[in-house]
Amino acid sequence: MKFELQHTDAKSSARVGKITTDHGEIETPIFMPVGTVGSVKGVHFRDLEDDVKAQIILGNTYHLYLRPGLDILKAAGGLHKFNGWDKPMLTDSGGYQVFSLSDNRKLTEEGAMFRSHLDGSKHLFTPENVVDIQRVIGADIIMALDECPPGDAEYAYAKKSMELTHRWLKRGVDHFDRTEPLYGHSQTFFPIVQGAGYRDLRTQSAEFIASQNREGNAIGGLAVGEPTEVMYEMVELVNGILPKDKPRYLMGVGTPANLLENIALGVDMFDCVMPTRNGRNGMLFTSEGILNMRNEKWKNDFSPVDPNGTSFVDHHYTKAYLRHLYVSKEMLAAQIGSMHNLTFYLWLVREARKHILEGDFVQWKDVMVKKLTTRL
Amino acid sequence: MKFELQHTDAKSSARVGKITTDHGEIETPIFMPVGTVGSVKGVHFRDLEDDVKAQIILGNTYHLYLRPGLDILKAAGGLHKFNGWDKPMLTDSGGYQVFSLSDNRKLTEEGAMFRSHLDGSKHLFTPENVVDIQRVIGADIIMALDECPPGDAEYAYAKKSMELTHRWLKRGVDHFDRTEPLYGHSQTFFPIVQGAGYRDLRTQSAEFIASQNREGNAIGGLAVGEPTEVMYEMVELVNGILPKDKPRYLMGVGTPANLLENIALGVDMFDCVMPTRNGRNGMLFTSEGILNMRNEKWKNDFSPVDPNGTSFVDHHYTKAYLRHLYVSKEMLAAQIGSMHNLTFYLWLVREARKHILEGDFVQWKDVMVKKLTTRL
Repeated sequence: MKFELQHTDAKSSARVGKITTDHGEIETPIFMPVGTVGSVKGVHFRDLEDDVKAQIILGNTYHLYLRPGLDILKAAGGLHKFNGWDKPMLTDSGGYQVFSLSDNRKLTEEGAMFRSHLDGSKHLFTPENVVDIQRVIGADIIMALDECPPGDAEYAYAKKSMELTHRWLKRGVDHFDRTEPLYGHSQTFFPIVQGAGYRDLRTQSAEFIASQNREGNAIGGLAVGEPTEVMYEMVELVNGILPKDKPRYLMGVGTPANLLENIALGVDMFDCVMPTRNGRNGMLFTSEGILNMRNEKWKNDFSPVDPNGTSFVDHHYTKAYLRHLYVSKEMLAAQIGSMHNLTFYLWLVREARKHILEGDFVQWKDVMVKKLTTRL
Repeated sequence: MKFELQHTDAKSSARVGKITTDHGEIETPIFMPVGTVGSVKGVHFRDLEDDVKAQIILGNTYHLYLRPGLDILKAAGGLHKFNGWDKPMLTDSGGYQVFSLSDNRKLTEEGAMFRSHLDGSKHLFTPENVVDIQRVIGADIIMALDECPPGDAEYAYAKKSMELTHRWLKRGVDHFDRTEPLYGHSQTFFPIVQGAGYRDLRTQSAEFIASQNREGNAIGGLAVGEPTEVMYEMVELVNGILPKDKPRYLMGVGTPANLLENIALGVDMFDCVMPTRNGRNGMLFTSEGILNMRNEKWKNDFSPVDPNGTSFVDHHYTKAYLRHLYVSKEMLAAQIGSMHNLTFYLWLVREARKHILEGDFVQWKDVMVKKLTTRL
């Protein structure tokens, strides 16, 4: 993987760059649609490429490991071959899902023991085997196993958790460097900054992560319940420490406004289930604000879903029709909502990139954030 | 509406024709995807037009009347404007759903009283008001209110029901001829042959329906539980009586093999929920046979979903991946299955048309029917 930092904004820490992988290039800042079990819910890959204009998608190691499982993924020749997406992919380490989905899990020095949320079967994720699993999945960018404490974690717990994450990182790095990719394309390994909402822990973690000198770095454990201001404060602090010449990936974030504020703080990569999950439930993000499509007020509004939208769904369908589909629980509602939101997120990061290059990013961002957070 | 009978097969009753409506032409034989509440489940209209190559779709009066309701449909300017499909549409009369969906309904000479399956509210469908409702919906082809007895109806009940359907038809025809379309495009009204599985009733009904001299005629009350041979026997009998110069629409039929056999008997138009419903559940129809995509046997089969298929989903996705999506209950599975099946149904009727014109329809049909009914 290569990262070229192409431009840094004079009035903020926003950056424009280009990541090159064996599956193609990614222009940053970028948003990565989440393909949980190898499918971005509700969206055909053709449309993800042609309409959404996604450049990289994310897969969840926890889900893919349980289903379809490593035997099938290996037989397919990796996830790219399995789902037919031949552009860049990133996988998380599975740690986050172990804690959010498994009722029954136990953390030890060795790793995370858990029971599958599907059939109760017992499994162990270690810093080493999540590297092996991600070798089998074959994503271009793979992640270290970490523990992600809740947003309100107490200091003592956050510190202990961060120290474990650091020890796990050393083992993961060693294992990654001793092993080879399986399918002829290269893989790179990102470590993850933790430390909850504590400045000294975040500082310590960012310094440790930076010292690993990997090709890119991630910030985890944010947008997990803490106040938004704390997220921004931690990102600013961490980005002041992480190297400027490596891409920075803020995991699991966020709303459109969160994206713009974090881009201003120097983040290059994002992923979040929000555009698809909220799209399925009827919440649409647009350049003028947020629409709840189930609202009675749209029932006789025959204007396009989003007159400023760049997806075909924005112009083919009307608000009244889309409301009818949500109220009638028609699948097509979720398909339209997901397509719209993903296309909007990708449009938003392209616009951010353009404004950073043009030098008016901060003014544009301040206007946009107000609009993006308006309820229409 | 105009119908041009372009060619009749020398060795069967199969026909090729062209229906012209104010929303465009339909080449027959044709299959009409079902858009229950104004949406063909799981398929964007863009894809329905470009990939499936649908020429006409069906809407359900019962569903559309209850939701979004007539006020919204009228405000939109009809269903075409409401859902953005500007090609031909057909609506059924709602009678079938009154009997299949409403727990609580009562048949009188006046019409069918029923309670909504959604909220229990009480409604009355009469031969006259289903014309008015279909005027508001605005489909190009609208249907008479009929009673559809079950496949195993006893003779006395079937006769009484048919006679009621005939009396309702007279009232429907009178009302249709006294009223005007609402949106500037013309509408035509099809009567429906009933008579269950009884030759004398079907003969009597076909003669009565033919005597109405409408622009097209429908055959109802088949594929409702009777043996397939009875369906074919009744269709052959009825088509011997219905005028040759008018399109014949066999309602609610059927499997791919049913389509070909009925085309051979002179049917021009079909509709059925099977391609979308079975597609959602993992059953795929192909030119080589039927695939149950949930089957364990596909889990390591990395060949395309359907190498002979004409939809993009057939070539982008593999059987193993599609099986994984069904097993994981991913929305994309239902989307792929629905797209595949609808595209296959439309391919099948285009092929039938081609073979009728080329003069080898019967030979082709006999080979195809064997394949179509094979379980792969």
